[in-house]
Amino acid sequence: MPDIAAVKAALAGQRIETPSWGYGNSGTRFKVFAQAGVPRTPFEKLDDAAQVHAFTGVAPKVSLHIPWDRVEGSDGYAALAAYAKERGLELGAINSNTFQDDDYKLGSVCHPDAKVRRKAVDHLLECVDIMDATGSTDLKLWFADGTNYPGQDDVVGRQDRLAEALAEVYARLGDEQRLLLEYKFFEPAFYTTDVPDWGTSYAHCLKLGPKAQVVVDTGHHAPGTNIEFIVAFLLREGKLGGFDFNSRFYADDDLMVGSADPFQLFRIMHEVAKNGGLDATMNVAFMLDQCHNIEAKIPAVIRSVMNVQEATAKALLVDLDALRDAQRAGDVLAANAVLMDAYNTDVRPLLRELRQEQGLAPDPVAAYRDSGRQERIAAERVGGEQAGWGA
Amino acid sequence: MPDIAAVKAALAGQRIETPSWGYGNSGTRFKVFAQAGVPRTPFEKLDDAAQVHAFTGVAPKVSLHIPWDRVEGSDGYAALAAYAKERGLELGAINSNTFQDDDYKLGSVCHPDAKVRRKAVDHLLECVDIMDATGSTDLKLWFADGTNYPGQDDVVGRQDRLAEALAEVYARLGDEQRLLLEYKFFEPAFYTTDVPDWGTSYAHCLKLGPKAQVVVDTGHHAPGTNIEFIVAFLLREGKLGGFDFNSRFYADDDLMVGSADPFQLFRIMHEVAKNGGLDATMNVAFMLDQCHNIEAKIPAVIRSVMNVQEATAKALLVDLDALRDAQRAGDVLAANAVLMDAYNTDVRPLLRELRQEQGLAPDPVAAYRDSGRQERIAAERVGGEQAGWGA
Amino acid sequence: MPDIAAVKAALAGQRIETPSWGYGNSGTRFKVFAQAGVPRTPFEKLDDAAQVHAFTGVAPKVSLHIPWDRVEGSDGYAALAAYAKERGLELGAINSNTFQDDDYKLGSVCHPDAKVRRKAVDHLLECVDIMDATGSTDLKLWFADGTNYPGQDDVVGRQDRLAEALAEVYARLGDEQRLLLEYKFFEPAFYTTDVPDWGTSYAHCLKLGPKAQVVVDTGHHAPGTNIEFIVAFLLREGKLGGFDFNSRFYADDDLMVGSADPFQLFRIMHEVAKNGGLDATMNVAFMLDQCHNIEAKIPAVIRSVMNVQEATAKALLVDLDALRDAQRAGDVLAANAVLMDAYNTDVRPLLRELRQEQGLAPDPVAAYRDSGRQERIAAERVGGEQAGWGA
Amino acid sequence: MPDIAAVKAALAGQRIETPSWGYGNSGTRFKVFAQAGVPRTPFEKLDDAAQVHAFTGVAPKVSLHIPWDRVEGSDGYAALAAYAKERGLELGAINSNTFQDDDYKLGSVCHPDAKVRRKAVDHLLECVDIMDATGSTDLKLWFADGTNYPGQDDVVGRQDRLAEALAEVYARLGDEQRLLLEYKFFEPAFYTTDVPDWGTSYAHCLKLGPKAQVVVDTGHHAPGTNIEFIVAFLLREGKLGGFDFNSRFYADDDLMVGSADPFQLFRIMHEVAKNGGLDATMNVAFMLDQCHNIEAKIPAVIRSVMNVQEATAKALLVDLDALRDAQRAGDVLAANAVLMDAYNTDVRPLLRELRQEQGLAPDPVAAYRDSGRQERIAAERVGGEQAGWGA
Repeated sequence: MPDIAAVKAALAGQRIETPSWGYGNSGTRFKVFAQAGVPRTPFEKLDDAAQVHAFTGVAPKVSLHIPWDRVEGSDGYAALAAYAKERGLELGAINSNTFQDDDYKLGSVCHPDAKVRRKAVDHLLECVDIMDATGSTDLKLWFADGTNYPGQDDVVGRQDRLAEALAEVYARLGDEQRLLLEYKFFEPAFYTTDVPDWGTSYAHCLKLGPKAQVVVDTGHHAPGTNIEFIVAFLLREGKLGGFDFNSRFYADDDLMVGSADPFQLFRIMHEVAKNGGLDATMNVAFMLDQCHNIEAKIPAVIRSVMNVQEATAKALLVDLDALRDAQRAGDVLAANAVLMDAYNTDVRPLLRELRQEQGLAPDPVAAYRDSGRQERIAAERVGGEQAGWGA
Repeated sequence: MPDIAAVKAALAGQRIETPSWGYGNSGTRFKVFAQAGVPRTPFEKLDDAAQVHAFTGVAPKVSLHIPWDRVEGSDGYAALAAYAKERGLELGAINSNTFQDDDYKLGSVCHPDAKVRRKAVDHLLECVDIMDATGSTDLKLWFADGTNYPGQDDVVGRQDRLAEALAEVYARLGDEQRLLLEYKFFEPAFYTTDVPDWGTSYAHCLKLGPKAQVVVDTGHHAPGTNIEFIVAFLLREGKLGGFDFNSRFYADDDLMVGSADPFQLFRIMHEVAKNGGLDATMNVAFMLDQCHNIEAKIPAVIRSVMNVQEATAKALLVDLDALRDAQRAGDVLAANAVLMDAYNTDVRPLLRELRQEQGLAPDPVAAYRDSGRQERIAAERVGGEQAGWGA
Repeated sequence: MPDIAAVKAALAGQRIETPSWGYGNSGTRFKVFAQAGVPRTPFEKLDDAAQVHAFTGVAPKVSLHIPWDRVEGSDGYAALAAYAKERGLELGAINSNTFQDDDYKLGSVCHPDAKVRRKAVDHLLECVDIMDATGSTDLKLWFADGTNYPGQDDVVGRQDRLAEALAEVYARLGDEQRLLLEYKFFEPAFYTTDVPDWGTSYAHCLKLGPKAQVVVDTGHHAPGTNIEFIVAFLLREGKLGGFDFNSRFYADDDLMVGSADPFQLFRIMHEVAKNGGLDATMNVAFMLDQCHNIEAKIPAVIRSVMNVQEATAKALLVDLDALRDAQRAGDVLAANAVLMDAYNTDVRPLLRELRQEQGLAPDPVAAYRDSGRQERIAAERVGGEQAGWGA
Repeated sequence: MPDIAAVKAALAGQRIETPSWGYGNSGTRFKVFAQAGVPRTPFEKLDDAAQVHAFTGVAPKVSLHIPWDRVEGSDGYAALAAYAKERGLELGAINSNTFQDDDYKLGSVCHPDAKVRRKAVDHLLECVDIMDATGSTDLKLWFADGTNYPGQDDVVGRQDRLAEALAEVYARLGDEQRLLLEYKFFEPAFYTTDVPDWGTSYAHCLKLGPKAQVVVDTGHHAPGTNIEFIVAFLLREGKLGGFDFNSRFYADDDLMVGSADPFQLFRIMHEVAKNGGLDATMNVAFMLDQCHNIEAKIPAVIRSVMNVQEATAKALLVDLDALRDAQRAGDVLAANAVLMDAYNTDVRPLLRELRQEQGLAPDPVAAYRDSGRQERIAAERVGGEQAGWGA
């Protein structure tokens, strides 16, 4: 049976990265519903992220998104990093954006026009510059590139362009930096997507070299895809760079992680834990990437962090010896029962205990609510443009 | 074998309704790409729709969307209808919008708060007022209502509120007016949708009465759903009010009708034709509802109209006597072959011939391109706010 | 907060029906793997079902499948019912089979040939005769009818034949008998299925009358379908006849109930509990319908019964007052949290306690294993034809 | 514009491989419907395949399946190859079967028990022996391996075992032999499949070496997967070994190729043709793999061959110069129109003409029907065990 002290230690050491854009307004193509108190600057986003870390104790890293988090001035990013550090945070992955300029209507690094590709690659290189300034080690690339109609562009030609752009960016990386290539089944492209699945990302990363790894966004798969298989496979290959956690019932719904299928999240974390993915040396980034369309932002991020914690705790409680024995014996029901025994355990008391040992409130959501901060920012953050999806 | 003259007559008599919003900018949650020359007013949208009708000869009706097509003044809608008539058009279905106000974050007619529901129902009643003014006979209702998270609201309570709202609107309809209730699998709601499938829409329409019918949007189904079965079933029940035609590979992609699966469109039109759906007395509305995110608007609508025509032509070419004989004999291969024989026929020469007989150019897309109009509107329609998704 | 005594009483009163065919061999089209000790006669199936009831205390009913459970002689079924009664069981739903004769290649009640339809209807009427003999009140109809190729048969014609067959069977039902009409998305038909979704089943049941109700098989939906919505909707309409419980990751995988998505099972039971579906007066049949292809049969059925119990217990623990308050307040996160609070509770201690209060072993799986019965039947049930899928 | 003579030459040179098991009975887990006249021996299967080739002129190769086509005696396979040669045929891919022995309940090459793995690998090595005897160059591997329940076995451990088995078989291959590794989304495994997608197959083939390539079975993907993207990607990598063609609306329905989505088949063949896949030097095997559950076998295979021909003909008619011009110009509608222009062309007259030039009947299905052979084999092939799925 797992040792509870070791489980607690592993949980205390877990690092979950929250996204700056998760604190701003977001929505669907039909409507972005504005919320009171959402941040208007990258600094205010860090203020919010600091709250999440303060109440959970495991969320010290914040992903940035360029240009949404662009700051001006030669020292701008250094100042942003310093601002983070003062609040107990550090800046995490730098996310590029090559989908919100009119130029990108037909793609970015895969665009048929070399000028557009040049612009896109330059943006990616700028992101590495920002990494140098912030100390970020991860460049996270998601390309909205693809086509909407059969015949619209050449599938192979687009792969060639993609490979060329990635190679240029890869060459620019520093020794401690890496490139995380995300894949997505569809949206915003509706016929072909240029990196539609893990296989495509993996094949490109393999050619690029050891500093290129795959990112698994849990909402970016075809219906029914077994995500934990992919996770296990990539860990076996040393090619799992990290996660973009979120949850979905249908497509890329971007709901709070664990909210649609908590059992799936547990199965993923089980493969992570069993295959060494929680070891710091494996350098798997546990990032959130969600759109809080209708729910309050900060409590939603707190809840998401807690959901990852709970799934991790259950994964750590799996009796691996008993599991292996049952697996080797070919006892289907017994093996499944070992796994389910951990999943069915209520780990919330354990996590509450852990938080109290760390000097935190046992219930982070309630503690945040009682802090009165939400009312404060709603009152204070008035005027200016509220940061949102694309703001 | 089908009589070619009868086929031509049926094709010449077909009426396809184009949506005012199909002429404006649209996009995904990631980006709306602006296009030069898109209309800035409902009147300019009618100008564009008139072009589509001028070149195809079968698209005299235009669906409006309120409030996107709201016009001011006591005679506003009458003036709009007159403007349409002068251009050989008539105003078609009035589409309500209960999803773009901040109030509607948690729903409209199904919202937990009675005040929001009142506002939404009042909007629906306003739409009937507009129908009275424009002479439109169809009120098309699509509700974005639903929930994103398990537990968020009461599924049954929401059905009760929906039923109540529909009943009030139904009671307001004139003798020649009807209510068309659309369903959608998901989006923008990501857990439950209050009218998620044809069964739900059908059940409500049944209770409302004969003036309530189901609308089938071809992009609003779960993966793999057999849409033509639904179409045939609703025709058998007298409950098929019409179509929102578009096309998809994944979710509600809203691509040009027939572009993703032309065989499916043919199978749908085969069920329509075989079961009387092309008869004017059945009053099935053949509407388009698409988002032209990256392609030029007017030519895309022309192409869509042509795609519906081609699918209809193939459906009319099915040798129904031979089909029935093979079906009765249980000859699977022969029955399938009869259908495929029609599908594999190139009907474009027939349609070109028909157009020439009607005094139209044989190739509507080329004729529109050669007309120079696109360049003209791009030059003229400068300044003002370009109409778009939500504009 | 829910009253624990009331929760226990509800759990003690729950009745779960197990299928006779769940005790025999089953498999996929690729292979049926034989297991030692599977029953060779309907009587031996009842012996196995009696074990499940003995160890769980909530599974006294057994569904039969005709002709798999056909017994000879004028008193055959009465004898079978008596045999069940002696073991503390009663015979539940009678399941018809109109898919395993060569005649049914192109369908049964929807077949183009009237002779085949007559044969199929006669079989259904025979099933009602058997109900009269066994005292069963439920006739469960699942039709494998459909087509594999576009054009193969007439969709509307098949509906007409279906309606005619159902009407004849409905007319034959006694006062206390009802007809439960199951739907299925696809398989074994691969183009159209004649009852593919709940809407089709509902529409037919509505026309038939109050003794016709819909059965929800949890594996019979398109990917992503929200099953709990359908359950809630049918309960609202008084048309939910019961469940065929099982579990799936992909298609109709027929895995043990709750094994693929325990959260979904909980959400379904939440809608059942909240909307009165656990009240005996609602007469919702909680049946299992699974294929235990690779796992030991009897322990798998015991585990399945326990999984339904656990989901039910969690559903009963939902604080409905708190839920309604949060829903009315539009507090998305709080409402979701109330639901998740119940789901995250480990209800196994409660169920163990309940079993002990009922004089049962707290862990039914372990108790069955320790009973040594499995080894006994493996040794005794040798020779004869082992009952299986189609045996 | 494509040169018609070159199109005809390409079509005349195409080689489509039919599967021996496509001539026998097949079915679903619910029922295998027997047909009169199906072959009882591998020799009779070759007789049937010879008919398909005689009437189409492009189907000279036949895939075998071991053990279904096992022949006895030291010269058995040489005799079978000679029998084929006399009928103008040659033996194609050898398909292994590691799923129909009771030993394989929990897998074959991935089984937890080394003894079962040994048995499975020995079977694969036997298949290479058979290749040596028949002159076949392709070993086609599809593994039914996987698990049904979370926890049942170790995902990574199973990959290790798979890699080990593949390496042993790869080492056994002769200079002119290759290994084709098929992937499948699910079925018969319902939780994990050990080679579930092209990425997994590709990763293993990459490690094995140049004689290992991926096979794309068109029915083995998640819903919505863009198959032509995978085809193009693998051709770019030199890793496309061939196709198992068939068609589906839902899962692995195994319908006649082109029957469910002829446009998809065209798009696949477009990528094949554009990227050199029709060149003999690329060595792409165009195989059929279908289950003719309800339709007559030989005419169904003839129809399938014709459907591949028609899709190929349309692909060859794409005006690639015009397509590239439109793609480079970013003209979405024009590029799509070029592709659709080829698709909408009725190529049946061209193929009829080609057949007549080759001395064949223009309509192979009618010619086979008129030959009276079907009635002959139905009368002659009586007694003995009819070959079927697993026979």
